Amino acid sequence: MASGKNKTPTLNTVLSPSLLNLYDLTDSTVVIIDVLRATSTIATALFNGAKSVIPVDSVADCIKLGKQMEVITAGERDGKIAEGLKYGNTPLQYTVDFIKGKTLVLTTTNGTKLLHVALAANANSIITGSFCNITSVCDYLVKKKSNVILACAAWKNRINIEDTLFAGAVINRIKENFDINCDATQLAETLYLQADGRLLDFMKEKNASHYHRLMSFGLEEDIKFCLTEDNANILSIYSGGRLVAG
Amino acid sequence: MASGKNKTPTLNTVLSPSLLNLYDLTDSTVVIIDVLRATSTIATALFNGAKSVIPVDSVADCIKLGKQMEVITAGERDGKIAEGLKYGNTPLQYTVDFIKGKTLVLTTTNGTKLLHVALAANANSIITGSFCNITSVCDYLVKKKSNVILACAAWKNRINIEDTLFAGAVINRIKENFDINCDATQLAETLYLQADGRLLDFMKEKNASHYHRLMSFGLEEDIKFCLTEDNANILSIYSGGRLVAG
Repeated sequence: MASGKNKTPTLNTVLSPSLLNLYDLTDSTVVIIDVLRATSTIATALFNGAKSVIPVDSVADCIKLGKQMEVITAGERDGKIAEGLKYGNTPLQYTVDFIKGKTLVLTTTNGTKLLHVALAANANSIITGSFCNITSVCDYLVKKKSNVILACAAWKNRINIEDTLFAGAVINRIKENFDINCDATQLAETLYLQADGRLLDFMKEKNASHYHRLMSFGLEEDIKFCLTEDNANILSIYSGGRLVAG
Repeated sequence: MASGKNKTPTLNTVLSPSLLNLYDLTDSTVVIIDVLRATSTIATALFNGAKSVIPVDSVADCIKLGKQMEVITAGERDGKIAEGLKYGNTPLQYTVDFIKGKTLVLTTTNGTKLLHVALAANANSIITGSFCNITSVCDYLVKKKSNVILACAAWKNRINIEDTLFAGAVINRIKENFDINCDATQLAETLYLQADGRLLDFMKEKNASHYHRLMSFGLEEDIKFCLTEDNANILSIYSGGRLVAG
């Protein structure tokens, strides 16, 4: 195997935030994955012209920032708009008309929390990933040639199907460029291949827990949007406390 | 859904010891799964007539017990016989001639540690599972009708393929008897179905990390044995500090 700066970068997949501490993030690009719906919403807001997205880990911080700055405050807890916030975590809300030129401050149950865990662990760099911007994510990772951690936000630390599927989709596209010695990576790709492009039906067949949670809130259109590739194909990269278009 | 004592029991799958604290074990039967090789060794020792297996979580405790009692002390760290212990963690060693009527004190990198985590979390009851005794495990769980946690020992908390495959095999056999709302359970069963009965080849194809670790120690026969169904088909149940034949 090559050594030094020509060494093939590694790729690891972390299926729950509780497992992130097993990895050294300091030399890695961490991809935050919260398909339903934080990272899909972030991609959509940036794609439709948001100036930036500020991810915060508590509703209180979200409200506080909203009082200090001219921003849109939004967030959810347990899949619903969080109390005290006006807007939620549905990507469909963040149209060009609504979000262009504005700053979005967002807090969610899993995704924005995980981003802060990665920050605290001194991740070398952080991007967010979703089916909505999968090609931008893959292109960036292949071009950057640094170690990759695919970090699934899961649901309150319990592994979920949708984030694992997205990790599997990324792995399937870019694996030739990485040195992979990670069973979770194999698991995620196997799940993705098994879904065979029918992501929505697969979620339904597999009785995915968050699929049912969102369906019970009448959010089928959100789910369909979040499982569509490249409908908001922009790189979302963390820089100076904000996610910005890369 | 039925309520009270006729309520369908739940089944959850925990792919790493780091995720076990997300579940209430106090009303559950916890199945400790460490296919390569602790729980395969335990089943084999009991099947071949061991009086009991005492799982301990440190090499020091193993050595100490060996001085206090007439027992066989055995264990591994990182896949090799642990320093200070005479015997290792290969099921093939525990033949009738060697183990019949004896007590085995065993410590391993992942499996025996996980058992102690489940104990500390006040699991209602604990059994150990491996392909070697899969039918006994499934029969017990179906008959007991209590909640089930399939707890994978993984490798130093990182998810592994072989324990996930075994969880999937159990799920595939007994799922009709349980109320399942757990994405990790779906993931494990999908992986198992994808292996399609070719467990050894699947491990090889998927570049399973512990498969390679053991192969590099020349332990192919161990791996084959550990992936064979019902070659030591006995229930292994924890009672009074020991694993005994059920």
